Amino acid sequence: MNAYQALTERFQRLARLDHLSAIAGWDMQTMMPSGGSDARGEALAELSVMHHEILVQSSTAELIALAQQETLNSDQQANLNEISRHYADAALLPTELVEAKALAGSRCEQAWRQQRIENDWQGFQRNLTPVVELSRQEAQLRAKALGCSPYDALLNLYEPGMTSQRLDTLFGELIQWLPELLQQIVAKQPASSTVQTHRVFPLSQQKALAESVMQLLDFDFTHGRLDVSAHPFCGGVPTDVRITTRYNTDEFLSALMGVIHETGHARYEQNLPKQWPGQPIALARSTAIHESQSLFLEMQLGRSKAFLQRLHPLICQHLTAATDLSLNDLVQQVQHVSPGFIRVDADEVSYPAHIVLRYEIERSLINGEVEVSDIPELWDEKMQRYLGLSTAGNYRNGCMQDIHWTDGSFGYFPTYTLGAMYAAQLFNTLQQQLPNLDEAITLGNLAPIFAWLKENIWSKGSRFPVDSLIQQATGETLNPKWFKQHLERRYLGD
Amino acid sequence: MNAYQALTERFQRLARLDHLSAIAGWDMQTMMPSGGSDARGEALAELSVMHHEILVQSSTAELIALAQQETLNSDQQANLNEISRHYADAALLPTELVEAKALAGSRCEQAWRQQRIENDWQGFQRNLTPVVELSRQEAQLRAKALGCSPYDALLNLYEPGMTSQRLDTLFGELIQWLPELLQQIVAKQPASSTVQTHRVFPLSQQKALAESVMQLLDFDFTHGRLDVSAHPFCGGVPTDVRITTRYNTDEFLSALMGVIHETGHARYEQNLPKQWPGQPIALARSTAIHESQSLFLEMQLGRSKAFLQRLHPLICQHLTAATDLSLNDLVQQVQHVSPGFIRVDADEVSYPAHIVLRYEIERSLINGEVEVSDIPELWDEKMQRYLGLSTAGNYRNGCMQDIHWTDGSFGYFPTYTLGAMYAAQLFNTLQQQLPNLDEAITLGNLAPIFAWLKENIWSKGSRFPVDSLIQQATGETLNPKWFKQHLERRYLGD
Repeated sequence: MNAYQALTERFQRLARLDHLSAIAGWDMQTMMPSGGSDARGEALAELSVMHHEILVQSSTAELIALAQQETLNSDQQANLNEISRHYADAALLPTELVEAKALAGSRCEQAWRQQRIENDWQGFQRNLTPVVELSRQEAQLRAKALGCSPYDALLNLYEPGMTSQRLDTLFGELIQWLPELLQQIVAKQPASSTVQTHRVFPLSQQKALAESVMQLLDFDFTHGRLDVSAHPFCGGVPTDVRITTRYNTDEFLSALMGVIHETGHARYEQNLPKQWPGQPIALARSTAIHESQSLFLEMQLGRSKAFLQRLHPLICQHLTAATDLSLNDLVQQVQHVSPGFIRVDADEVSYPAHIVLRYEIERSLINGEVEVSDIPELWDEKMQRYLGLSTAGNYRNGCMQDIHWTDGSFGYFPTYTLGAMYAAQLFNTLQQQLPNLDEAITLGNLAPIFAWLKENIWSKGSRFPVDSLIQQATGETLNPKWFKQHLERRYLGD
Repeated sequence: MNAYQALTERFQRLARLDHLSAIAGWDMQTMMPSGGSDARGEALAELSVMHHEILVQSSTAELIALAQQETLNSDQQANLNEISRHYADAALLPTELVEAKALAGSRCEQAWRQQRIENDWQGFQRNLTPVVELSRQEAQLRAKALGCSPYDALLNLYEPGMTSQRLDTLFGELIQWLPELLQQIVAKQPASSTVQTHRVFPLSQQKALAESVMQLLDFDFTHGRLDVSAHPFCGGVPTDVRITTRYNTDEFLSALMGVIHETGHARYEQNLPKQWPGQPIALARSTAIHESQSLFLEMQLGRSKAFLQRLHPLICQHLTAATDLSLNDLVQQVQHVSPGFIRVDADEVSYPAHIVLRYEIERSLINGEVEVSDIPELWDEKMQRYLGLSTAGNYRNGCMQDIHWTDGSFGYFPTYTLGAMYAAQLFNTLQQQLPNLDEAITLGNLAPIFAWLKENIWSKGSRFPVDSLIQQATGETLNPKWFKQHLERRYLGD
């Protein structure tokens, strides 16, 4: 057995541990009774320690060095690059720093759940400060190894190859035109419909509707399932993808759109390449590419008029309280734009403003240009500038609304808007390549769309860097103009 | 840190891996879509290999030897004994034998599922023969180390301290009186009731009934749940016990009695000692003691007239198709005795005959006195002698009905009837110690019963050997007369 083969066996072993983590983690969010959480947390932590020990043992570095001297084909070379990246990401930090950050993060997150409710910024600030401090230490160590800025080093954990220089341009331009576009759209759109008021949509009907929509979207139920959790997510493993939603009996669209979103993540996972089992090259390319797939299904496809025409009869068929919902009402509700405080409730037009704001603050925070205590003022100022809303004193609906910073996931936020941009670019290419796309969508003939995604994105796994993947699929690297065009056409067009 | 502490840390780590195995295993039986099974099987096998590697590493033996020289209190000494036993059980076999047996067992079990349907004894025999051969090799290696017969060595994996000499006496006496008692009971009982014919019991109503009965039996829903699986079991971990049942819309009693049975297992798990987290001393004592708890709840308590009086209104309340079921009908159905081919469908009077038959055959098989090809004839002969039924040519309902032998779990069967005997002995003691027990049961005042079980069995974990545990609880070691008395009183008495 050569060094490369030895490495692939080691990574297959790690993938099997990841499998068990994924299922036990899913169970924790969906099935586990409350009293099971302490022991479950300990078991998952133990597995994570074992995973880390196997990954960073000195022989891994030795095998990588040896494998780099071996004759490999281009797939193997790409896999070795991914193996090296995963190894370096894990091995770079001293164990004490990893543990200290995990502890501070878990403490901050736990306390945040209550502090947010109580609008307790002072309390939150005390817990967030050490998380930021440890994240800065992590960023500096990673930056030194990678030869980049501290913030870029964290960004690369989620989006390999992305830089803040590039984000400054992408997001800087976007935030020039977005506030005005938003005003134009809000001024133009009809008053929001009230058709759903005082209606009851039973959970069993909503679930049946969700599953029929998943079927329409070709979700493979022999390799996955739909359940309920407090915070919707896509988990599990490629052979067994677990998506979740949360139902509300007063209103069905947010659960339904959430299911379409998670189905986008799920189809990516279910269609990742199978010829490299357990290898990093077979994993999803990046966080932004993953988000591009969920937003492709939810925003580009799912909220389009063509798709809503196909969805409309399914809704009327499954929900007894929605039989009189008109297609027009449905489109109005699904495409309603309304700037608000909360990112997760935002429409696709306001959403990027929430992201640019967070990106600008977290970049400065990690690079040491601002401090935790500066956050509320920065937040309020940017909210006013980008969305015309003030969050002064309203921490709970301002800088305390998200979970991401509580455990130090700095560098994650930009991937949401990068995902939206990639999704628009991919959908635009598809429109060029498939004539009569809207008609096919209206008829529910989605197979050509999925075949295209499978060929160009899903089946590629991590075979190519992001830029190369997107270039091959669309003929150019990330170009934000398609996102802008998408918003203008959907919300100001016809 | 001394050697004993190092050992306890190692076993806590192993317990955390067991936690993940238990949850992923439960998920496989209850939640996993069909396409997930290969990758899940590989992940679980990987975890099991890691578990084995950690357990049998040479330093474990060294630490045990060092700990035996350390000053330990009696709890620690008992734990060290259990640690040594677990280590020896695992370390005794060469890896190649473990792997060969796992492979042959998995092959035989897989094929058996179809071969049983097709009544294909020849095909099954071909697969079972290597399983028996490898089990004999295992038994001989273990026997040599323990200084006992090959069969006893396997028996000890499930029931530490039990011998076939003792079983020969217990089961030999039992099978003297059982066939006649069975005839007497069948002759005496009224014709079976047909009250359930052509009724429909919706699953949702049965589930609500099952959960209300679990509540009556003090199942802790903050540390466990009830789900559905093809084969009912009790899984999970003590902090999160997962029991399952299977519902049939034509008939509700088998699911309900199954739930009561699994609740017995579950309450034992939920009430194991908490002061030794992750240590072998905190585990359930043995397979037979575990079964004694399920049979205590199902047979001693659950099928008693007193309990059925309490159960009756709950059934009428939850099942709309059972509102006219009389208490008398209920008792008749629950206590109906009818010798049949299938062990898992057997009433508590016929059940031991199925076990004695299997015990006699597997003991001779492992000790090399009979061969696989002899099984069908032996089976038929014993079925005729013990239950008056012939299984000649009927392999599917004869020697091919059980899963146990397919993967080489020889030594397991006796624990079912040992469990029934322990249950009768425990219940008899309780009757002596708690005056007006029947009245309390009828009123649903079960707290004193559970307090007694908790004090005498559950909270002891593996602190004492089986004989000592039973002696402390009942004043004597296993005495089969209480089981005989129980059957006579319930089925021939008043």
